Formats: sequence, C-alpha cells, structure tokens
Amino acid sequence: MTRYKAIISYDGTLFAGFQRQPQERTVQEELEKTLCKLNSGQPVTVHGAGRTDAGVHAYGQVVHFDLPQSRDVEKLRFALDTQGPEDLDIVSVEQVSDRFHARYQKHSKTYEFLVDNGRPKNPMMRHYATHYPYHLDLKPMQEAIKDLVGTHDFTGFTASGTAVENKVRTISQAKLHRDEKTGFLVFTFTGNGFLYKQVRNMVGTLLKIGNGRMPISQIKTVLEKKDRNLAGPTAAGNGLYLKEIIYED
Amino acid sequence: MTRYKAIISYDGTLFAGFQRQPQERTVQEELEKTLCKLNSGQPVTVHGAGRTDAGVHAYGQVVHFDLPQSRDVEKLRFALDTQGPEDLDIVSVEQVSDRFHARYQKHSKTYEFLVDNGRPKNPMMRHYATHYPYHLDLKPMQEAIKDLVGTHDFTGFTASGTAVENKVRTISQAKLHRDEKTGFLVFTFTGNGFLYKQVRNMVGTLLKIGNGRMPISQIKTVLEKKDRNLAGPTAAGNGLYLKEIIYED
Repeated sequence: MTRYKAIISYDGTLFAGFQRQPQERTVQEELEKTLCKLNSGQPVTVHGAGRTDAGVHAYGQVVHFDLPQSRDVEKLRFALDTQGPEDLDIVSVEQVSDRFHARYQKHSKTYEFLVDNGRPKNPMMRHYATHYPYHLDLKPMQEAIKDLVGTHDFTGFTASGTAVENKVRTISQAKLHRDEKTGFLVFTFTGNGFLYKQVRNMVGTLLKIGNGRMPISQIKTVLEKKDRNLAGPTAAGNGLYLKEIIYED
Repeated sequence: MTRYKAIISYDGTLFAGFQRQPQERTVQEELEKTLCKLNSGQPVTVHGAGRTDAGVHAYGQVVHFDLPQSRDVEKLRFALDTQGPEDLDIVSVEQVSDRFHARYQKHSKTYEFLVDNGRPKNPMMRHYATHYPYHLDLKPMQEAIKDLVGTHDFTGFTASGTAVENKVRTISQAKLHRDEKTGFLVFTFTGNGFLYKQVRNMVGTLLKIGNGRMPISQIKTVLEKKDRNLAGPTAAGNGLYLKEIIYED
C-alpha cells in the first residue's frame, strides 16, 4: 500500500462537519466516496487531522489515506478534485511514509475566526463570517487575547461533558486585527491542539469583553476557575476557518 | 403617498434575478412581500434601477416604492432588513421627491466582475467569483479594455434577439486590476446603462484575449462589426456585482 497526504479546503456551509456520521453529508464521506470510485470500487478510509464542526470551513485541512498502487500525485489530485463535489477542493496530494498519520503525528493547527462587525452586513458573507452588529472595542480584546497564549488547562473554554481527559493545551499565537480592506475582525489562534468548541468559546468570550459586558481579566478567570459558565457564549461556526496545519518532522 | 428610495444588497445565488417572475424566487418579489406585511397587507410595487440576472450579486442596487404614510426611515430600513430573507439586506432608506424614479431618473451604474484565476480554487468563493483555471496575461486585457470606453453601439456585446432598439451606450470607465490580497482579477465598468448580458459578454471576450485566443484588436472588431458571433462566450453570472448607482440631480 502507498500512503498519501492531501491538503484539502472546503466550504463548511452544506457539510454536517468533517467526520462521517450516518444520514449526514460530511467531508470524510464525500472524500471516501470519490476515492472508492478511483480505487475500482474498493473502499478507502480517510483519516483527518481533526474534526471540524458543521458550518466550519477549511483552507488547510490535512488527511491521509492508503491506495494499493503508487500513482502520479498531480493526476490523483486532479481526479479527486474534479470528481468530488464543488464545495470541496483538493489543494495538493503527496506520497508520504507509512509512518505518517494526519492525526497522531505531532502538529500545530492555525484557526482563523472572522467577525463582520459592520452595518450594513454583507449578504455575500453570511456563511463566511459571524455577524456581530453591536459595538466592539478592539483594545480590550487585544489585551485580553494575550492571556490565552501559553500552556493552560482549557476546561473552561470547552463544551461541558467532553470525553477527552487531558484538557491542557498550548497556544503559541493568539492575536486579533481588523482587516483594513473588509473591515472584518480577524482572530488568529495557533496551537498544538484545540478542544471541542474551544476556539468558538474563546471568541465568544472575547466578543463579550469587546462589548464591555465582561472585564479584560475574564480570560484569566475562566482559565483559573475552569468553569464553562464563566465564559461567553459559543460563537457561530460560520466564522471559523481551519487555516493551516504544520507537522513536525 | 410618500416615496422612498432604498439601497439594497443581495447574494444572487439563490435568486432567479431581480425582476418578478411567476414560480421563481426573485429580489423584487421578496421586497414586495415584506413591504406588503409592513403596509397592513396592502400590496406595494417595487421599482428597481435595473434588472440583474440569476446568480448576479448587488452591493448597491437601488429601488423606490410608495407608502401611504411618512415613516421614520431608519425604523423602516430596520424592519425591511430584519423581516426579509437573510440573503437580501437593506443598506439605507430615504424619503425622496415624487419625481424620483429608480429606473428613469438619469444615473450611472458601476459593475464589478471577479475572476478567480488561481489554482487551487477557493471553495468559499465558488458562488462569488468566476473560476478561470487557464493562463491569463493581464497586459493585453488591460490594453483591450480601453477600447470599450466611450460612446459605442454595443450590439455585438448583447444577447442576440434583444428587444431594445437603441444599443448605443456610453462607458465612462473600464479597467482591470489584480487584487493583491485575493489574487482575483477585478473588472470595473461604469456607464449610463448596459444592455442585456453586455458586461458578461465583454468579460468573456477579454478573457479570450488574455488567454491568447483572440487578438487585442477584437474589442474594436466586435464594436465595428456589431456581430455577437465575433465576441467571446458569456462569462458566468456568479462573478458579476452591481456595485453602485449614482443619480444625476
């Protein structure tokens, strides 16, 4: 068997997330359907670097899968891209060692979260940024976001009742800027792993801080108390993008 | 009766165009439905500055309509915006003189056309830019586009069999640049009126010139010969935006 790594991008709007689920349209299922066709009808299992939720987009999701033959990677990329659905694109395909695993090989992920803070809102962006029509002060959010950087127990920022036991993760980069061209707020987070809904809960808390309904110190408080009830609401999935995954050698 | 002018924006993807048609979802119909609700169930007719085709977007379409009462325009804007569908937004509403007519009062329109010339394509933009995966030279297109500026008979760039008799229009601005951030090609056209499919046919011709399959002189030839067969194919509607309408006083 030959192992392939692929970088894929997708519009999450019409997907019930990345991971295969009965009776739902998912990214994994669509990829596996196309790969099965390209593999003479034999099923192929796709392993993703991580799940993305319903409505969440990706520019740089990474998957791996095995095929019996060694193939020309550009032809394989083209076939996967053109025979799959139009909201799922195959950015690149490469042959990798059998030891590569999209999920278990150490990596960092970068997520971006877009907030449309404008009025009027942009109807073309309704699935691609979260509209927040209330007042936002950038300064306190930029101050508070720094407290997320480092190694912390992120229990307070994950959905309660998650099965994962170890909730310590490291965020190496957390920043916020306003895109001058679009006027959108862009949150960027890089880390060695994120818990279920962690990014959306961090953004929801920062928005409350920017709107003056939580103090700048709230991030620290949530990290210390590990209490989900102290954090802000979960921001909508439509603003979230899995931007890039970088593997350690 | 009080006359109102509104600037509206919409995502054309799920509309069969601006103008009301039986059994189709249109922008005019959606606006009229919401206005009828706000007008105690009495029908209200909406007049648009111009039609846009299925899939074509707008940031600055202009409409007018009459209501029996004088209303607070910001409340009216808010009601129209929030009670209408999410792919149609109301940018502004103002009271205007009874003599104002969105279509007949002299105005200039600016259209933009976005071409995604990248590989890989961006799945988030599949409804919002026309993907053209072939080689394009900007220089010859930028040279040729200048020939569209001025007062010309645009018969060769409109759909054959159009009912409009006078096909002379004036284009005051026609330009092309590459957006540095997105990498997209942005065509901009301003004029005192455009014929049916004129912008999309001009873009289709310019793309053939950029791809080296038509000479730079082709724009001039189409204008002179007034023959639709000499122009390039109609570019897809998903790249087209009605950007702005400016009325003369």
